Amino acid sequence: MNDTRRIDGRTNDELRPVTIERGWSDQAEGSALISYGRTKVLCTASFTNGVPRWMSGKGKGWVTAEYSMLPRSTNSRMDRESVKGKVGGRTHEISRLVGRSLRAVVDMKALGENTIVLDCDVLQADGGTRTAAITGAYVALADALAWGREKKFIAQKAQPLTDSVSAVSVGIINGVPMLDLAYTEDVRADTDMNVVVTGRGKFVEVQGTAEAAPFDRSELDTLLDLALGGAITLTDFQNRALEG
Amino acid sequence: MNDTRRIDGRTNDELRPVTIERGWSDQAEGSALISYGRTKVLCTASFTNGVPRWMSGKGKGWVTAEYSMLPRSTNSRMDRESVKGKVGGRTHEISRLVGRSLRAVVDMKALGENTIVLDCDVLQADGGTRTAAITGAYVALADALAWGREKKFIAQKAQPLTDSVSAVSVGIINGVPMLDLAYTEDVRADTDMNVVVTGRGKFVEVQGTAEAAPFDRSELDTLLDLALGGAITLTDFQNRALEG
Amino acid sequence: MNDTRRIDGRTNDELRPVTIERGWSDQAEGSALISYGRTKVLCTASFTNGVPRWMSGKGKGWVTAEYSMLPRSTNSRMDRESVKGKVGGRTHEISRLVGRSLRAVVDMKALGENTIVLDCDVLQADGGTRTAAITGAYVALADALAWGREKKFIAQKAQPLTDSVSAVSVGIINGVPMLDLAYTEDVRADTDMNVVVTGRGKFVEVQGTAEAAPFDRSELDTLLDLALGGAITLTDFQNRALEG
Amino acid sequence: MNDTRRIDGRTNDELRPVTIERGWSDQAEGSALISYGRTKVLCTASFTNGVPRWMSGKGKGWVTAEYSMLPRSTNSRMDRESVKGKVGGRTHEISRLVGRSLRAVVDMKALGENTIVLDCDVLQADGGTRTAAITGAYVALADALAWGREKKFIAQKAQPLTDSVSAVSVGIINGVPMLDLAYTEDVRADTDMNVVVTGRGKFVEVQGTAEAAPFDRSELDTLLDLALGGAITLTDFQNRALEG
Amino acid sequence: MNDTRRIDGRTNDELRPVTIERGWSDQAEGSALISYGRTKVLCTASFTNGVPRWMSGKGKGWVTAEYSMLPRSTNSRMDRESVKGKVGGRTHEISRLVGRSLRAVVDMKALGENTIVLDCDVLQADGGTRTAAITGAYVALADALAWGREKKFIAQKAQPLTDSVSAVSVGIINGVPMLDLAYTEDVRADTDMNVVVTGRGKFVEVQGTAEAAPFDRSELDTLLDLALGGAITLTDFQNRALEG
Amino acid sequence: MNDTRRIDGRTNDELRPVTIERGWSDQAEGSALISYGRTKVLCTASFTNGVPRWMSGKGKGWVTAEYSMLPRSTNSRMDRESVKGKVGGRTHEISRLVGRSLRAVVDMKALGENTIVLDCDVLQADGGTRTAAITGAYVALADALAWGREKKFIAQKAQPLTDSVSAVSVGIINGVPMLDLAYTEDVRADTDMNVVVTGRGKFVEVQGTAEAAPFDRSELDTLLDLALGGAITLTDFQNRALEG
Repeated sequence: MNDTRRIDGRTNDELRPVTIERGWSDQAEGSALISYGRTKVLCTASFTNGVPRWMSGKGKGWVTAEYSMLPRSTNSRMDRESVKGKVGGRTHEISRLVGRSLRAVVDMKALGENTIVLDCDVLQADGGTRTAAITGAYVALADALAWGREKKFIAQKAQPLTDSVSAVSVGIINGVPMLDLAYTEDVRADTDMNVVVTGRGKFVEVQGTAEAAPFDRSELDTLLDLALGGAITLTDFQNRALEG
Repeated sequence: MNDTRRIDGRTNDELRPVTIERGWSDQAEGSALISYGRTKVLCTASFTNGVPRWMSGKGKGWVTAEYSMLPRSTNSRMDRESVKGKVGGRTHEISRLVGRSLRAVVDMKALGENTIVLDCDVLQADGGTRTAAITGAYVALADALAWGREKKFIAQKAQPLTDSVSAVSVGIINGVPMLDLAYTEDVRADTDMNVVVTGRGKFVEVQGTAEAAPFDRSELDTLLDLALGGAITLTDFQNRALEG
Repeated sequence: MNDTRRIDGRTNDELRPVTIERGWSDQAEGSALISYGRTKVLCTASFTNGVPRWMSGKGKGWVTAEYSMLPRSTNSRMDRESVKGKVGGRTHEISRLVGRSLRAVVDMKALGENTIVLDCDVLQADGGTRTAAITGAYVALADALAWGREKKFIAQKAQPLTDSVSAVSVGIINGVPMLDLAYTEDVRADTDMNVVVTGRGKFVEVQGTAEAAPFDRSELDTLLDLALGGAITLTDFQNRALEG
Repeated sequence: MNDTRRIDGRTNDELRPVTIERGWSDQAEGSALISYGRTKVLCTASFTNGVPRWMSGKGKGWVTAEYSMLPRSTNSRMDRESVKGKVGGRTHEISRLVGRSLRAVVDMKALGENTIVLDCDVLQADGGTRTAAITGAYVALADALAWGREKKFIAQKAQPLTDSVSAVSVGIINGVPMLDLAYTEDVRADTDMNVVVTGRGKFVEVQGTAEAAPFDRSELDTLLDLALGGAITLTDFQNRALEG
Repeated sequence: MNDTRRIDGRTNDELRPVTIERGWSDQAEGSALISYGRTKVLCTASFTNGVPRWMSGKGKGWVTAEYSMLPRSTNSRMDRESVKGKVGGRTHEISRLVGRSLRAVVDMKALGENTIVLDCDVLQADGGTRTAAITGAYVALADALAWGREKKFIAQKAQPLTDSVSAVSVGIINGVPMLDLAYTEDVRADTDMNVVVTGRGKFVEVQGTAEAAPFDRSELDTLLDLALGGAITLTDFQNRALEG
Repeated sequence: MNDTRRIDGRTNDELRPVTIERGWSDQAEGSALISYGRTKVLCTASFTNGVPRWMSGKGKGWVTAEYSMLPRSTNSRMDRESVKGKVGGRTHEISRLVGRSLRAVVDMKALGENTIVLDCDVLQADGGTRTAAITGAYVALADALAWGREKKFIAQKAQPLTDSVSAVSVGIINGVPMLDLAYTEDVRADTDMNVVVTGRGKFVEVQGTAEAAPFDRSELDTLLDLALGGAITLTDFQNRALEG
């Protein structure tokens, strides 16, 4: 790795400033306003007693997620998907990623026949919105589960959370692997990877993409090292928010 | 009027606490995060040099608005309109109201061939979201116009703003007219009226609806008095935010 | 007010010729083809025993409305909303207005678990289509209620209609308030207001809009006077149609 | 054939009463309100100078059609296709049939670069709506062409109409071939055929369908005889309307 | 008729080479990959025990069909209807035709409360895709019925198939009637007719269309003769495929 | 690893039988019908001279892809996305993956202002459809590029292809890593990974997902080894198909 600083002065293995404002919403059963630098995502968890009809009677719960960007969260305004009348491919893809990531740390039997919907709405976007969404959604989820237990929708002895989960992006820019890309870095990256990791350091998702230049095995190894390092810090932020 | 206090201790002619966080967004040309009590609306103004093709060549600008609610801004989660694949009637109706209200204080000739889109996204809803959206959108609009002038898209001598504009709801609950209804008041109202007023005290919109009980001329007069009173206070908040 | 006649020779407080052809449809439980001058709206009322599932078991009925314009009801052809694949904002807004207006004079308990859908299809448009729709829909509604009683879906002693309802537009053109604007007047109006009034002279809806020039309190008062006057005449037309 | 009269007293080769109210619309360039018994269809022709971009520069015109039913044109109310967000298969199929049928009697070169849209909206349905639509649309089309010539959009010597066109349904009920089926007959028919015929007696469309019982060659021959007979009468009605 | 050979060397009453690959799919209860010359259609029959709720309890089954073209089945690529967000008129029309044609040879009482969906996907298109779809779908249907009997969803003595069914196109090109038009012939045809015929030689559908030139009774007769001749050969192909 | 054979007798590092039928379509500029065991995907490449308007004038080309499944490609019939009126999340996600994978081996400058659309339609599905689609689409792409060169839309010296590309799935079942999962294996996998690799052995995409059980670094390493091994064989199949 070269030793030049990044555009915002960070080292290559440094996260942007992270803040988690737990309980931002007065309405939702769990919520967090998370920021990774200028990226801000409002995550809410909606707890419903019961499951969709097709799942009913199996003694298991369901966790799903929806991701969306406000039209002017970005540098130039995007058309609303509601106005276009359809959800775009990128939105679909990220919603599915967030849902799978959270389900990976939930024991659906322990959840019981309850449904949790995680809404991740990007209020401001500067790269890494999907990873911030996952990290913030975990905090909202944890609070919604606590709410469900308090309301006795979840059995007292049940432990629906099997681990915590966070996510971060990594990428290779001009041959240099870096952690937590801001938007200006992201657009210049040869390879871009989103990594979802549990609190115990296991992988939930590894999504690496090389539009500009295919990457080899050793580059992949370096990226995974960076991501695992970032995940330790993010897990720490989550734990402090949930203790606060 | 009776003299009992309201559920939140306000008098009948009292607004909820109002805050306007101007410049909330780093991305938009103008923005404001406005709150009327627990109701919070993020308003952004997107300035584009040029107008839609069908308006081109007439030397006039265009101002339009889109209103939307986050799925869990409300007490129970609503489905996203993007997922349902269509914009609902209420959303359409409010988007149109916000756009008309702002256009009422813009001189389109002075704006020149520029377009401003106002996005009003309700982050938390507790009644009065459409009126908060109008009041906040005015602040975002004013900043976007200042930006356009600075960038020389608007002529130096042009005065696109002809007045300011704010909005507030009024209603009759158990026969008592009240200002700025919170959600729990709104659902119990016999008559509900949204009033949009300029800084000089003229009406832009008067939208009164009586599903539960038709209202007579004197009730209408009382409601208009309350609304005009509220508008004076709101105009003051706007002016202070824009001076800040 | 100035004393010059209007483009079609009317005085400022004069309605266009109104006709109501009751029972136009052989199929619907109630129907009326109403005209306000060249504006023609076919209103049908469809009576169904039962209510949507979400309302079931509460002993109350439901009244709703849909408004639409034929593609060539207007001077230049509009695309069909069915072909565009979505209902436009204006259509949504008017459908909701018509529904609310009619519900304001129906006692849902007295209606019992029955549903009435009012379809208002504009066959020819020359201004005031939404107000004609409301006035005509009342006639169709009254006949559908009579049909429901005859078929014993409504209890013999029940009085679902609490009042009658009609609507008319008023506006200010070149500073002059006028009643029942034709299309050529409507497009030149500084302020345009639709007023829905019960047979007893109470307001159900007051929707005033000032895109061109905000209006003051005394202008508003004059407009309301004109509307109340027009409503008396319209109520008379409705009563005669229903007696005929 | 048996000699018993039909439910409405007609003989098997008799049309229902036909009326054509030419020029019903004040707005369209051509229009006709046609009735076949209780079936009523409002046909308008919208003339536009110019053609869609993909046809431009070829010196040829375009004629197209859209068919639709009002929601309560039928015995029980249908949902609106605009509300459902898509045009149904039957509507599509009939719109295409009407368009093809009218194009069959138009010389597109003689029409020049002009577009005519025929809107056929069923106000009341009692069987045979598509055939009434074609017969009525021809009258609207003829008037729109006359309008185009008067406005000099069509060359003075050009003869865009090569023939007239009308349509009628025929069917076999309990083994008996019959002309112009009313709805109660149509639902009982073994075979149902719509036949579009020019004024000179040639076929434009023959669409025979046998859901209940396949038909043989001699039955087909009898049906075609009935249809050709009906077409002569319908052509006569069209000619009289256009002379009137 | 003239005696010149066609572009591909066929005589006017000659079909293109027909192949039927029965049981192409490992997944469906019945399937056939059929080709009429270069036209290739994959037909699958999906058997479900039970019927849609609105048909339930009547002791009758349901057969329906969906037709679709792959985007590059044609000479230039078409947009996918899924991406456009709606099914086009032509697709709707053909799906309905295929469904009606197959239902004409099924005794719904004998089928019992079972549903069969026929999917006809055009892999390569060179004219006559809808007729090939019908002919191939019959083979898939026959196998799905055999499967249903084997699984005891259909009573052992029941005979759901009342006949076989096949389809072929005929048309008039430069005044010459021809059988089974390839695409290059189809686009030049004055009249184009699709004829659906049972194995016993009765008509199920006759759909003749004359955009370019209306046709007379004797031309119609010749076309029907050609179609009946082609149907005999197609029935033979079906029988051999089902025996194989 | 345990040494028991898989359900179909393969070893853990063994691909299913692969066949590539190059030039399956008579219509497309490039095509391949590829099978991985019972999974069959028809891949076509449509070459268009020119690029979408927003890319025009930059001297660069564009490659995109659409993936879809026939409704009865699977064990139980799925509804068509065209009928549902929207493209599902999974379809969107895979279409984007296929497009990115192919773009990774195309030099857009060398392609010049030409567009290639890859359509991958799954005719039969038994696991691994997205990976088969990528491997087959490469063959179709190579032929379309050769066609473009022959037609002189691509410069003679230009080398648009920078490498070849193939894809394969790997997964962990009961703790055992395996190559190229069939459907019955896929549904039982704890971790499922799709890996896209160039002919030179570099990664284009690594997409690993752990819904059932998070995976550690050494498991990830084993999966990548299996995938790289499979890619060598697949590259060989591609080369032989293109030489054939």
